[in-house]
Amino acid sequence: MVCMTTATPGTAPRILAAARRQPVDRAPVWMMRQAGRYLPEYRAVREKADFLTMCRTPALAAEVTVQPVDILGVDAAILFSDILVPLEAMGFEVAFLDKGPRIANPVRALADLDRVRVADAATELPFVRKAVEEVCDRLAGRVPVIGFAGAPFTLACYAIDGGGSKDWSRTRRFLAEHPAAFAQLLDRMADTVASSLADQVRGGARMVQVFDSWGGILDEATWRAVALPPIRKIVRALKQVGVPVTLYVGMSPHLVEAMVDSGADMLSLDWRCDLPSILERHGDRVALQGNIDPCLLYAAPERIRQRVRALAEAVAGRPGHVWNLGHGLLPDMPVAHVRAFVEATRDPMGNGDQA
Amino acid sequence: MVCMTTATPGTAPRILAAARRQPVDRAPVWMMRQAGRYLPEYRAVREKADFLTMCRTPALAAEVTVQPVDILGVDAAILFSDILVPLEAMGFEVAFLDKGPRIANPVRALADLDRVRVADAATELPFVRKAVEEVCDRLAGRVPVIGFAGAPFTLACYAIDGGGSKDWSRTRRFLAEHPAAFAQLLDRMADTVASSLADQVRGGARMVQVFDSWGGILDEATWRAVALPPIRKIVRALKQVGVPVTLYVGMSPHLVEAMVDSGADMLSLDWRCDLPSILERHGDRVALQGNIDPCLLYAAPERIRQRVRALAEAVAGRPGHVWNLGHGLLPDMPVAHVRAFVEATRDPMGNGDQA
Repeated sequence: MVCMTTATPGTAPRILAAARRQPVDRAPVWMMRQAGRYLPEYRAVREKADFLTMCRTPALAAEVTVQPVDILGVDAAILFSDILVPLEAMGFEVAFLDKGPRIANPVRALADLDRVRVADAATELPFVRKAVEEVCDRLAGRVPVIGFAGAPFTLACYAIDGGGSKDWSRTRRFLAEHPAAFAQLLDRMADTVASSLADQVRGGARMVQVFDSWGGILDEATWRAVALPPIRKIVRALKQVGVPVTLYVGMSPHLVEAMVDSGADMLSLDWRCDLPSILERHGDRVALQGNIDPCLLYAAPERIRQRVRALAEAVAGRPGHVWNLGHGLLPDMPVAHVRAFVEATRDPMGNGDQA
Repeated sequence: MVCMTTATPGTAPRILAAARRQPVDRAPVWMMRQAGRYLPEYRAVREKADFLTMCRTPALAAEVTVQPVDILGVDAAILFSDILVPLEAMGFEVAFLDKGPRIANPVRALADLDRVRVADAATELPFVRKAVEEVCDRLAGRVPVIGFAGAPFTLACYAIDGGGSKDWSRTRRFLAEHPAAFAQLLDRMADTVASSLADQVRGGARMVQVFDSWGGILDEATWRAVALPPIRKIVRALKQVGVPVTLYVGMSPHLVEAMVDSGADMLSLDWRCDLPSILERHGDRVALQGNIDPCLLYAAPERIRQRVRALAEAVAGRPGHVWNLGHGLLPDMPVAHVRAFVEATRDPMGNGDQA
């Protein structure tokens, strides 16, 4: 199944063109965690099912995935799911509690690696592909669907620490004590992630994003040595599938050069990265996505518009920019402010030439 | 009271000379959280008293402050205390629970600011100065004592979010919604911190360090606008007192230029900062402290020695370097590895010309 999506008949959707650094009528916009609790319509669905049930039920996942397209008019839908969903198929017992995810059987010793297997998404995560297919049906070509997965290092953080952590000290200890085993674990994560992303593309996703949410806890040399090789493996696999790959790394101002070397088509920048200077320096190799501080959406709409305008002036219409936040939306953000951001990106200079 | 501390009679202690970018016989070493749970001797004291009692009891605070000097031979003692201790004197109810600090009456609305007052350390935090005095007595001039405090922005994070946080969204929301009130709060924090540090100097501290542990959640422009002015106020106050000021900012690769503009004598660098290139660029304006990844101390001593040697080669004996980690020691780090780090810094090239 393939979603046919064009903004204007006969042309590529804006976000696909922008990811390939081709000219667009206006820079497209979407937001990380746009299918989320800040939307009353999302909360209404969430009341009926727990988080994991929503991830596993294509009709529910598709419903909330499409909501921000209907409500806010963003230029892409990103599948509602969680980066830890593939870990279940790899042999981990994952629970989503109110205080965050918990893994009952984390990797703590070398022997624990024996039970970590590469998952084949088509057979072991069929509900993910079905959710993408259902999203495509509902969108009927309006905007493309973005598939996504966690990066191997970030998945390993949860697999080893067993849940969220302030300092990920168990993960970093395992890396320091068992570097070869750590690399093996990440390689299995990479194969699983590549399998999952390829299956999401078979379901209709037109581009994919890899989230290395915790990669920024590593210094550049370590990130290059440890986290980058499995990401490159995923990028190579997805290039063969033929879709653009976006790479997000959290807390990454020191990792931008290394991220460029991933081979990803687009980098999704943390809000602390200086997007204009990165565009200046690397804009001929990668597209850039971002990177407004999500907490700006707590401010008054006029300040949101000012900030969008300032970034638009710095980007100066150069191709290869996709509007987004530098991190995910938070549950208590006012929908009116989120809408103000989306609308500001459509006409940042207030010229009225809104698409 | 003044501690008289000289490494060699007639010369300044190594760490004071290094902080002023003067030549030293070898680069001095100490470690953030060196008075901590990784030491069995610390745990023995901690069994007798809870954390806050230790902070408030000069004899106990002094005992654990001196331990790493006795046990590991580091070149400075840093007062055992907590950055949140001054918040109590400002009107906050602070508790230290197993899962971290909790503030029972955080700032959540503008009206809450009315009860936040500037604290006078001499009258309201007498036990802090007494602890420094007792440390000086016990050290008898062997090494200098470093006084410390949290930076205003980091203190505000706890004062507003009410405890540790994954994203500090309450703090960032307050900043977005009430920027003028936020600045007022930070200014009161700055006056309290300056008062506390000056009193620690009166008690015998020969230098001070300001910890902006969470400053790195802000982008550079916001950090410069919000977090830097109160830090500059503190630096100016301490320069009048006549001691070198060190500034640490966590997650700070994007903030180094702004940190230089603080006027601090020394920057304590997060492990993700590239110390050699920062030394190259700013070494004529500031001394640099750091910045080994603390999690390297989980690795085998031979790898610790290799990493110290590599950094020593990059620094190439230029003055103005103090060995330290890029963040605090963690409780489960092996003492033997901590010792290997300290010893490696004394003779990084293995020439045997150990001081």
